[in-house]
Amino acid sequence: MDTTARHLLVELFACDARLLDDAPALQALLRAAAEAAGARVVAEVFHPFAPHGVTGVVVIEESHLSIHTWPELGYAAVDFYTCGEVRPERAIELLAAKLGAARVERLEVARGGPADHTLRVSERLSARSQGHS
Amino acid sequence: MDTTARHLLVELFACDARLLDDAPALQALLRAAAEAAGARVVAEVFHPFAPHGVTGVVVIEESHLSIHTWPELGYAAVDFYTCGEVRPERAIELLAAKLGAARVERLEVARGGPADHTLRVSERLSARSQGHS
Repeated sequence: MDTTARHLLVELFACDARLLDDAPALQALLRAAAEAAGARVVAEVFHPFAPHGVTGVVVIEESHLSIHTWPELGYAAVDFYTCGEVRPERAIELLAAKLGAARVERLEVARGGPADHTLRVSERLSARSQGHS
Repeated sequence: MDTTARHLLVELFACDARLLDDAPALQALLRAAAEAAGARVVAEVFHPFAPHGVTGVVVIEESHLSIHTWPELGYAAVDFYTCGEVRPERAIELLAAKLGAARVERLEVARGGPADHTLRVSERLSARSQGHS
């Protein structure tokens, strides 16, 4: 078996605050994002915090997609660990669009595989949406 | 509220293969690791895969600790996203020791906080246990 995996760490800024505090809506959105990436969901756990914020994790075949939200600041921290043919970029694009993120910061880290491969930063991206400040 | 968080990505090599395939034991171990770090566990999901391997996620106050295992290769991929006063190093030390990891690779990435802070690689560590090859 191949242990090579991609781990995307994503910061979503200036999101829709209401949606960031809606645990059922976030659960449906993360499931849709995982499926958009071509992943098969096997388990989910979503937990609302008081007074604000949601933590959610979708477990996929040997991988996971997580979100932690701070609605009062319009901020969400996402990570997506993926193996095989999954296309995590598609999940991130869907999440950023549906949450209305004005700014997206993304870091990709190589996981698993040979010793000289693992934990290398393989990509860093920064993007702002049109029409947002 | 402060969104500043620490995200530790950890590779554990040459672990105890039997333990990496024991979902109930891993669940107890991750819970113990989260508590050793000073975190409060609010939800858990563990999923065994066929023929081998386990994915587990422990949700903690606005953070998470995850593991994906490849028992046949003695390999586990861990990530620990933490806010506040949690000491994730303590969790990683416990996991590495209990799983008998001969080699540990660790990358720490800064999350949240001000724009010039987020997604910076703040630490990279590599360690081998004594008495292992």
